[in-house]
Amino acid sequence: MNNPALKFENDTVYILDQTLLPHQKKYIRIQDAEAAFEAIQALRIRGAPAIGIMAAYTMYITARKYKDDDFILFRKKLDHTYHYLIECRPTAVNLAWALNEMRSLFMDESSSSVSETIKAMKIRAISIHKTDAEACRQMGFNGLDILPNPCRIITHCNTGSLATGGWGTAMGVIYAAVEKGWDIHVFVDETRPLGQGGRLTFWELQQNRIPCTLITDSTAAFLMKQKRVNSVIFGADRIVANGDVANKIGSYSLAVAANYHQIPVFVAAPTSTFDRSLENGDMIPIEQRDSKEILQIYGYDNNLFVHNDVYNPAFDITPADLITAIVTERGVIKKPFQKTINQLFKQI
Amino acid sequence: MNNPALKFENDTVYILDQTLLPHQKKYIRIQDAEAAFEAIQALRIRGAPAIGIMAAYTMYITARKYKDDDFILFRKKLDHTYHYLIECRPTAVNLAWALNEMRSLFMDESSSSVSETIKAMKIRAISIHKTDAEACRQMGFNGLDILPNPCRIITHCNTGSLATGGWGTAMGVIYAAVEKGWDIHVFVDETRPLGQGGRLTFWELQQNRIPCTLITDSTAAFLMKQKRVNSVIFGADRIVANGDVANKIGSYSLAVAANYHQIPVFVAAPTSTFDRSLENGDMIPIEQRDSKEILQIYGYDNNLFVHNDVYNPAFDITPADLITAIVTERGVIKKPFQKTINQLFKQI
Repeated sequence: MNNPALKFENDTVYILDQTLLPHQKKYIRIQDAEAAFEAIQALRIRGAPAIGIMAAYTMYITARKYKDDDFILFRKKLDHTYHYLIECRPTAVNLAWALNEMRSLFMDESSSSVSETIKAMKIRAISIHKTDAEACRQMGFNGLDILPNPCRIITHCNTGSLATGGWGTAMGVIYAAVEKGWDIHVFVDETRPLGQGGRLTFWELQQNRIPCTLITDSTAAFLMKQKRVNSVIFGADRIVANGDVANKIGSYSLAVAANYHQIPVFVAAPTSTFDRSLENGDMIPIEQRDSKEILQIYGYDNNLFVHNDVYNPAFDITPADLITAIVTERGVIKKPFQKTINQLFKQI
Repeated sequence: MNNPALKFENDTVYILDQTLLPHQKKYIRIQDAEAAFEAIQALRIRGAPAIGIMAAYTMYITARKYKDDDFILFRKKLDHTYHYLIECRPTAVNLAWALNEMRSLFMDESSSSVSETIKAMKIRAISIHKTDAEACRQMGFNGLDILPNPCRIITHCNTGSLATGGWGTAMGVIYAAVEKGWDIHVFVDETRPLGQGGRLTFWELQQNRIPCTLITDSTAAFLMKQKRVNSVIFGADRIVANGDVANKIGSYSLAVAANYHQIPVFVAAPTSTFDRSLENGDMIPIEQRDSKEILQIYGYDNNLFVHNDVYNPAFDITPADLITAIVTERGVIKKPFQKTINQLFKQI
């Protein structure tokens, strides 16, 4: 798998600047918390797992800068960085989780010295990165228990090496099929309005020489009608207790069309994506994005229009009854999801 | 209805340059066949009926230029113009139809003089324009027999005053509802990949102060799930004997989603859109557009990729069983379409 979202080499963090894709493949060095903050805000790096990993490394390289400080000052400065970074993207669960992992180390009263703490932070950051990559890999191979082969699959948004610390979630299953020599062809939704499918997934598949075809979102149903696809897979931003799935806008539309054509719908997500505190999908808050995001595409001036209105949700909810199976790093679960999700978490 | 696609004023043809929308509203004068040809090729004017009407006027203004020629030379020059224009867009049926209407006049051996022929051509061009506008208007009011009120309707692509000689087909029904004071709100699909919904329909609705909301194509199903819409309407490029409908890519996806949510799907098209020579939709050729049209959006260089592939059909087929009713200028027809389409044409 080529072109990871981030690399840690020679004690240095590099990220692939995704704003330059597909024009230019350029890794930039993240030297401090300010650079990390800017990279997240400007979408140079995106995808909840990838952001969390970069934040962990950023805490380590920041700690290294303060190596000559006394322990109290060291903690104070790092806590400042922690609060600075955690506010960068409040909705990304992995960012807060990774930062809290790092904070538990530098706030640990039992640690012997600043230098020991810095060493522990490096080990932890690498471990967070490695664990994510392993979960992706396991998820990928688990997916092969359920995908058809030959596989003609539609995927939505970007869930691959550009979004995680490994080869991805839904894309991870595709990479696993490729590694096992399956006969696979991937149809990539462009994924409006920001085009993460067209701009990132299509690029990622091309770079890895995986046979693929780019389509507009509204071509998917027509492709199904022609019997040119036999499966659908996408990731998840949140999966609740009954198996309802929040994911990038357009996932629901795909699932409805697949259901009409009797094509299975797979969701791939690590167990960290499950939120069993919510009963059903209606309880998941849906982020509404700025209308300018779409109006600007067509060159509209916001002030020009009397009845100016855009409905631009970033996510939608796919109800559990439209989902065939959910692929996790701990295995594949099927209906009834209420029961199988509970069983999944009892394994721990 | 503001901003018609074309105007004929003071013996002069003006078209709204649609390539400048929504930034600038500018009418340009069509002075000769070369300008008309260029305007069609560059998509300054589009929509099969609108193109046909402009071609008819162009034949008239060209004829006027040759008013001092003898009849034989006059015919020869006009026939040259006829062949020049008919090749501009071979798939648009209305273009050929309108040009043939005009040709029957200047090739008419029984006409008394060049000046009489020019007069007849002017009258015919105006008549083609007026007849199209009247058909649109009748279609619009016929649609009110079947649309719900209050009406929360999704429409796709551009079928309004920018595409026809009147207020449009599917959009005509919307204009009729507005004229009758209905409680109507229009949801406009952006209509990928060229965005005729986002760029033209949304602009047209705003200009006419009709309450509307722009959405991405893949948001439509989610909107239906939330019970925020109660109907879908789109136009047609061809309707065959069994009622299957070819229309802009994404129409099928909308119809599938509407079917899942038990929302009625209406198609609005003049009887000239019916092609009873084809039994079913599988027989309709689907125009495939250049992959560059989509690759360029994301800045891909065609040469960069090994597995470069884009599936970019301009149209899809919605089977008759997903269509609730077809609205024409002669009335509204319902299932079984095989039978009702035959009855529609027996009325003549």
